[in-house]
Amino acid sequence: MKENEFEVQPAVLSGETADIYFKRAVDILQMEGINPVATMEVFPSRDGILCGMREVLSLLRKALPEKSEVWALSEGESFKRKEVVLRITAPYCSYGVYETAIGGTLAQCSGWATAARECVEAAQGIPIISFGARHVHPLVAGVMDYSAIVGGCVGCSSISGAKLAKVAPQGTMPHALIIILGDTVEASLLFDKHMPPDVPRTSLVDTFKDEAEESLRVAQALGKRLGAVRLDTPAERGRVTADLVKEVRARLDLAGSQHVGIFVSGGIDPDRIRYFLENEAPVTGFGVGSYISGVKPIDFTADLHEVGGKPIAKRGRIPGITPNPKLKRVI
Amino acid sequence: MKENEFEVQPAVLSGETADIYFKRAVDILQMEGINPVATMEVFPSRDGILCGMREVLSLLRKALPEKSEVWALSEGESFKRKEVVLRITAPYCSYGVYETAIGGTLAQCSGWATAARECVEAAQGIPIISFGARHVHPLVAGVMDYSAIVGGCVGCSSISGAKLAKVAPQGTMPHALIIILGDTVEASLLFDKHMPPDVPRTSLVDTFKDEAEESLRVAQALGKRLGAVRLDTPAERGRVTADLVKEVRARLDLAGSQHVGIFVSGGIDPDRIRYFLENEAPVTGFGVGSYISGVKPIDFTADLHEVGGKPIAKRGRIPGITPNPKLKRVI
Amino acid sequence: MKENEFEVQPAVLSGETADIYFKRAVDILQMEGINPVATMEVFPSRDGILCGMREVLSLLRKALPEKSEVWALSEGESFKRKEVVLRITAPYCSYGVYETAIGGTLAQCSGWATAARECVEAAQGIPIISFGARHVHPLVAGVMDYSAIVGGCVGCSSISGAKLAKVAPQGTMPHALIIILGDTVEASLLFDKHMPPDVPRTSLVDTFKDEAEESLRVAQALGKRLGAVRLDTPAERGRVTADLVKEVRARLDLAGSQHVGIFVSGGIDPDRIRYFLENEAPVTGFGVGSYISGVKPIDFTADLHEVGGKPIAKRGRIPGITPNPKLKRVI
Amino acid sequence: MKENEFEVQPAVLSGETADIYFKRAVDILQMEGINPVATMEVFPSRDGILCGMREVLSLLRKALPEKSEVWALSEGESFKRKEVVLRITAPYCSYGVYETAIGGTLAQCSGWATAARECVEAAQGIPIISFGARHVHPLVAGVMDYSAIVGGCVGCSSISGAKLAKVAPQGTMPHALIIILGDTVEASLLFDKHMPPDVPRTSLVDTFKDEAEESLRVAQALGKRLGAVRLDTPAERGRVTADLVKEVRARLDLAGSQHVGIFVSGGIDPDRIRYFLENEAPVTGFGVGSYISGVKPIDFTADLHEVGGKPIAKRGRIPGITPNPKLKRVI
Amino acid sequence: MKENEFEVQPAVLSGETADIYFKRAVDILQMEGINPVATMEVFPSRDGILCGMREVLSLLRKALPEKSEVWALSEGESFKRKEVVLRITAPYCSYGVYETAIGGTLAQCSGWATAARECVEAAQGIPIISFGARHVHPLVAGVMDYSAIVGGCVGCSSISGAKLAKVAPQGTMPHALIIILGDTVEASLLFDKHMPPDVPRTSLVDTFKDEAEESLRVAQALGKRLGAVRLDTPAERGRVTADLVKEVRARLDLAGSQHVGIFVSGGIDPDRIRYFLENEAPVTGFGVGSYISGVKPIDFTADLHEVGGKPIAKRGRIPGITPNPKLKRVI
Amino acid sequence: MKENEFEVQPAVLSGETADIYFKRAVDILQMEGINPVATMEVFPSRDGILCGMREVLSLLRKALPEKSEVWALSEGESFKRKEVVLRITAPYCSYGVYETAIGGTLAQCSGWATAARECVEAAQGIPIISFGARHVHPLVAGVMDYSAIVGGCVGCSSISGAKLAKVAPQGTMPHALIIILGDTVEASLLFDKHMPPDVPRTSLVDTFKDEAEESLRVAQALGKRLGAVRLDTPAERGRVTADLVKEVRARLDLAGSQHVGIFVSGGIDPDRIRYFLENEAPVTGFGVGSYISGVKPIDFTADLHEVGGKPIAKRGRIPGITPNPKLKRVI
Repeated sequence: MKENEFEVQPAVLSGETADIYFKRAVDILQMEGINPVATMEVFPSRDGILCGMREVLSLLRKALPEKSEVWALSEGESFKRKEVVLRITAPYCSYGVYETAIGGTLAQCSGWATAARECVEAAQGIPIISFGARHVHPLVAGVMDYSAIVGGCVGCSSISGAKLAKVAPQGTMPHALIIILGDTVEASLLFDKHMPPDVPRTSLVDTFKDEAEESLRVAQALGKRLGAVRLDTPAERGRVTADLVKEVRARLDLAGSQHVGIFVSGGIDPDRIRYFLENEAPVTGFGVGSYISGVKPIDFTADLHEVGGKPIAKRGRIPGITPNPKLKRVI
Repeated sequence: MKENEFEVQPAVLSGETADIYFKRAVDILQMEGINPVATMEVFPSRDGILCGMREVLSLLRKALPEKSEVWALSEGESFKRKEVVLRITAPYCSYGVYETAIGGTLAQCSGWATAARECVEAAQGIPIISFGARHVHPLVAGVMDYSAIVGGCVGCSSISGAKLAKVAPQGTMPHALIIILGDTVEASLLFDKHMPPDVPRTSLVDTFKDEAEESLRVAQALGKRLGAVRLDTPAERGRVTADLVKEVRARLDLAGSQHVGIFVSGGIDPDRIRYFLENEAPVTGFGVGSYISGVKPIDFTADLHEVGGKPIAKRGRIPGITPNPKLKRVI
Repeated sequence: MKENEFEVQPAVLSGETADIYFKRAVDILQMEGINPVATMEVFPSRDGILCGMREVLSLLRKALPEKSEVWALSEGESFKRKEVVLRITAPYCSYGVYETAIGGTLAQCSGWATAARECVEAAQGIPIISFGARHVHPLVAGVMDYSAIVGGCVGCSSISGAKLAKVAPQGTMPHALIIILGDTVEASLLFDKHMPPDVPRTSLVDTFKDEAEESLRVAQALGKRLGAVRLDTPAERGRVTADLVKEVRARLDLAGSQHVGIFVSGGIDPDRIRYFLENEAPVTGFGVGSYISGVKPIDFTADLHEVGGKPIAKRGRIPGITPNPKLKRVI
Repeated sequence: MKENEFEVQPAVLSGETADIYFKRAVDILQMEGINPVATMEVFPSRDGILCGMREVLSLLRKALPEKSEVWALSEGESFKRKEVVLRITAPYCSYGVYETAIGGTLAQCSGWATAARECVEAAQGIPIISFGARHVHPLVAGVMDYSAIVGGCVGCSSISGAKLAKVAPQGTMPHALIIILGDTVEASLLFDKHMPPDVPRTSLVDTFKDEAEESLRVAQALGKRLGAVRLDTPAERGRVTADLVKEVRARLDLAGSQHVGIFVSGGIDPDRIRYFLENEAPVTGFGVGSYISGVKPIDFTADLHEVGGKPIAKRGRIPGITPNPKLKRVI
Repeated sequence: MKENEFEVQPAVLSGETADIYFKRAVDILQMEGINPVATMEVFPSRDGILCGMREVLSLLRKALPEKSEVWALSEGESFKRKEVVLRITAPYCSYGVYETAIGGTLAQCSGWATAARECVEAAQGIPIISFGARHVHPLVAGVMDYSAIVGGCVGCSSISGAKLAKVAPQGTMPHALIIILGDTVEASLLFDKHMPPDVPRTSLVDTFKDEAEESLRVAQALGKRLGAVRLDTPAERGRVTADLVKEVRARLDLAGSQHVGIFVSGGIDPDRIRYFLENEAPVTGFGVGSYISGVKPIDFTADLHEVGGKPIAKRGRIPGITPNPKLKRVI
Repeated sequence: MKENEFEVQPAVLSGETADIYFKRAVDILQMEGINPVATMEVFPSRDGILCGMREVLSLLRKALPEKSEVWALSEGESFKRKEVVLRITAPYCSYGVYETAIGGTLAQCSGWATAARECVEAAQGIPIISFGARHVHPLVAGVMDYSAIVGGCVGCSSISGAKLAKVAPQGTMPHALIIILGDTVEASLLFDKHMPPDVPRTSLVDTFKDEAEESLRVAQALGKRLGAVRLDTPAERGRVTADLVKEVRARLDLAGSQHVGIFVSGGIDPDRIRYFLENEAPVTGFGVGSYISGVKPIDFTADLHEVGGKPIAKRGRIPGITPNPKLKRVI
């Protein structure tokens, strides 16, 4: 991926998305003609996986004057609580107004990437697809899915997220299609008829009938073209259990459909993933929604540590540059 | 507020922010020439305050053909878990692709509004300002702050949020301004010199010196023009305590500055608000950040309950229209 | 019910089921020619519903000489911890060997009756049938079911229990019948064909297909003759949920089968019963198995309090008769 | 022990102790002339020690026609949750009605054996005697004590249990004997006078006097003939403590009675056994009552897995034979 | 009681028991000739019962020059956390060195009085005697017992404490006396022979024999002269239980000794007292040891609030006099 | 240290601080002319560090007649629960009355030493000074500080404690001195002017200004003569945090004051000490107050085990001498 692919939004560049007090601070300094070179450091409030830095650097490249200096960790790199992930040395008025955007981009993107990583680690190699776009505002659905992929997901369901991450969007079929058509097998056959061959055939089998019965029906109807069945049993019906996965596997195998995978979704989180693995359920893929998309952002704090070349800091912080050998110069 | 002020983003309208499987479902149906009138109902996974509905309705107004019917609860109305908040009856292909956007807008906005409401209720009349823009992606900073105000905050710090909510943005001054200038009193004086008279003078007093000492210094420097001091003591220094508020109040009063308010920020949430109130700390305003901005979205689920006028539903749901007398027809 | 219907087992009367040390004690006393009138009191270790007393009194009537005196609470009466429920005044050697049988009968029967009562109270009028015979040894299956009915169940599944309690045995159909026949509808039709008209038609609907789908199939096949469907979803499939009951109810009603009841079984206990009631699931009957049949017996202790007319007691007990106005003379 | 010693009760063989629905199922099949060879598998709901299998096999030998096949684990063998312990392949109508008896026998007997095993393992070689007959119905007192011995107890107190297990019944003396005679020493002397020499002399020393004082009195009275004292201090007096055992040991030793053992009873369970061992109390034997006799049965489930040679199963179970190499063919 | 009875110890008056830094502070001020009138306030860290104030005021009366002013709460008065209990206005050098002694006296004495009060409130009128002298250093045994009586105990066992509190010391007899004499009855008879008639005869009955048996023996030996028996069963024997008290009461009553009280000791604290009362044990008196004597002191803090008539305070405290209408002028 | 330095207080020697019942027991025995040689053993109720033994032995040396024998553990030695730490063999009447004083001295002194040891072990070499004199009665302030030093503290603040332990008393300066003088720097300069050169210059820096600011001011004023700053931030201001220590260290170092130590006090206990160490706060000394001074005493029990050469004991104890090879003969 190239750094410059993140388009900087005009509302961000204009400062409209900023906290008013940063804008006022820059205004006051400019009215007084004060604009010293200042060093700002940014650090997180808990451990995680860094994401959003590419977008932040795209913004800074547009904003900072020449001779500025920026050091940063890389997109996808892990960080520790309080570790400096970004250090900017430049005339304060050139970047002061972006403190809001920098912190917010890193906070939410790193939160998403970190949650994705937890699922990926729990799954021990079973692929995970980000399914959470429908729990976040559409303006950030794409960047959320992009972050999930930075965190280790193999794919995502939103078109915008897949575009940002330069992968093909993934998904099965919605319950709505089956309900409109009235039958899972019919929906599966039409899907198979119209979709390009490179789109995997994954049938959603919990809409009308028992999951095991429906799995056998679609396996018979699509034969070798069926890639997988998707179990998404709702809480009202006891959610997907490890035993259900095992039973569907056994019944598919008895029917000669060993090639059909079993994709599981519905309230999946690291605990649920571990539950399936500990109970040896033969899951071939997980769809994770709100555990990733609804995670609490990782708050980032920005502090000035030098002004005009001299160490300084507010109470509670250490004056001067905080050493971090992992930082690399990026601007 | 007028409904039409929510501009519909082109990427949302084009379906680019949608889950791919909704797009594929609509494509398949259209290729088959199937497009029955279908009724979709949307309900939340927990109790809360509805927000995002205005934005959703702006989208539906653009998308739905004539003779469609939409029933909804109002922006800011409270809802119960599983209560239907939105019901759309229209040809399925006209809105099926927007299930992602509808759910995501309601989920995140209602989450923010509900968290704000919790703070507002805990504060028993003490005004609360949303300060969380720096913890969310700048593309949603405005809509987050707008939602916080729908939930009951009296103001917000982001310029874009204030614009959406049609209020003036609020804030004090950043630590950065004080650090650049090297002294809290000097920063306060310059702020006072340059800002229009309608901007309240609130000095941030924990940057360099003891908060009580600094409060007395700025109170002396600005006299009657000082509106409030803001206590934002960092965790490294033990955060703001109820006793600190009481002491600053007592020392300001001893110095004749009874008119100066005390605004408190830093890790504020309903528990902390109750702590201050139970300990009778004379706080005059709270700034709340990540408790509101970082709240987990309230997941919304969309289900088809009628197709072609006949009751139907997937397993786990009840076929047919779910009655809710609170719904009002909006389209 | 008449007291004499409890047949005394020869092995009990002969002392073969006794603890050897009681037999030895009586042997020693008899060899020494010592046989004073002694008063034994029996009390429980926790609160409960008395059961087994009828069987105990049948034994004592056979064992005690004339002029003996027995006071007792009634079958089905509630008792408090440490309340005397039985007092025997008779020559010690005539009953000493039965201390084991008396304690054991009261302990297990009262345990079962008490557990049944807890379910009955939780169910607030919804009838409960004892289904636990398959979790206890067949020699006590009948007396267990009898005790459950003393505790408030309206019926039981074991033939022997129903005989003891003078009710008709109840049950639906086993999964085995459906599996042998290969289809739930066929099994239901054969059941309907062969069973006498007074046996209720209750179809077990979780064997092969989705419970809601199967309910509609049997309702259509048996029409007005169908009394109820029984939901017994196994843990591997998430057990019966309140939402499943509501959905089956709604789908049956939509299909015009409002007359069909919904009987629920599978791991039912007072907590589960309360869960269904609190969630307003329209259950018309519960089958309770191991919560009743597997309950821990209520230990009973027997103590001598008078020997030869004089108060005496072992350490830890109060010498002399313990007053209890609820006792009635029964022998 | 020979397999055939378990007498099959007529009421069990006649199906009277069965659940009515099994009887009805067999009746319906017979009326239709349907009786396929079917394979039923039985598995437990938690880990344990198998008991009751000998009794079950005695029943099956009487019930099954020639050419039937039965595979089983052995009496006393340990099993895991969900492990198949019994597999019957025979015409269904020959055994269907016994599902209740098979499950109940295994459930309760395995529960007792498993609880006994827990005590035996906690005791690390100190012998344990089953004392719980007085907490269960006399009809199962014997089979309970038999099961405890299968689980590892060295003996039991009920005459019927000892007979089933082919051991000599064990016990000390009841409080009643001492209370009738008015003195522990006198009771001990009469016991010694009348009991055959092979019955151990164990005096119960907590009836009237301090346990240590009484121990010294009986030790002096019986001299070398005294085998042990039994401590059974009631809860009203603080139960038996490890310190009491140590003190009685020390005082007996000071008095030259090193040969006298200390047998402890009263509320003994694995935790209490571990408490005595961890505190180095020199206990020489434990009597365990309701921990064994009052244990919750281990529920067993029976499922058909093949009918007419074809794999089949109800929802939630895997069709076909479940492999278990530990099974041995027994019929 | 008169205020002046507390003798001021020379080591306290000389400042030898003080923290060195208070002495150095006063030395420095005196070398500089600085000695302003200063107001010191003293407040506790938690709620409690004030004790030690009489001793503190005895010290201040000796130390303060004329024209000093002291306001205080009274001995035995209850106070709230952070409530000012003492305010001294005097030249600082006259009392500065006593801050250690003032705080320490109030801390430990108030701790003891507060713990005693908790026991007294739990006992609902049953008298309590302080028995804890053997758990504190002999130099404070008296002042500890005095404080317990201020807290509500009716008496104490130490001679020095009784003297301070102007009551007669109380006690029964030690185990040592009985062990030396070898028999409880003999010890009781000699006690009765030699002690003046106004000393109550309370026999300690757990030394050699069972408590109930021994109670009957001493009751028979002393007849109407026996005032009470004392139960002090050690933990090794299960401590005193409510049932033991009830049994001893019943056996004494059966023997015609209704006039004999039952005094209970051994690990008594408010929870144990409530346990006896809730179980309706007929206790006539409690002896409380380490719950009172071993309580954590209630820390007191002393702060200067005015110097030379001007409000001042260290950070964290409010400058100026803290109003408390409960204070009375005492010097 | 020599054993004889503990002066025996007249009130202790006279028996005035004793429990009245010990005095009465000795009186009775003497009136009867009974005074056998008796062996008393003393043991603690929990593990700890022995302290007070020197004082106890000083008393026994005065009290016991010739030919008495005393075995004991040493001052500062660790002991286990129930381990005998003292054994006296002597005519009972010569020491019986001192059971109260012996137990109380060991209980409180061992409690203090044990609490001190816990802090010392947590601190891993960072020196600890006992600062708790102001939380105990002045009569025991010295012996408390002495015990803390036996437990491992390097010093103490009370003059009397330092005298007993033969060390120099330690301390910094009280807030009172700074408040009287109105400025921390002025107080520090006067302290430096008047105190002998061997008294370390430690400035208390939380009185009026921010701790970091004040640290820099006193470091500048005293230069190389400043030994340390003391952080004692009150709870009202969030207490001392690890981050504060680090920040003060960093700011002092930036200012060239690497030689200045950082001494921390205020609510210090082993958990807080571990918190500072785990967070790598560069503390150079801790002051511990009420954790040591307010510890619950370790109860000691005294029992007679031989009288007239014969083993004896009360119920619950083992007659005869309890072996303990760690005991050494001291009298």
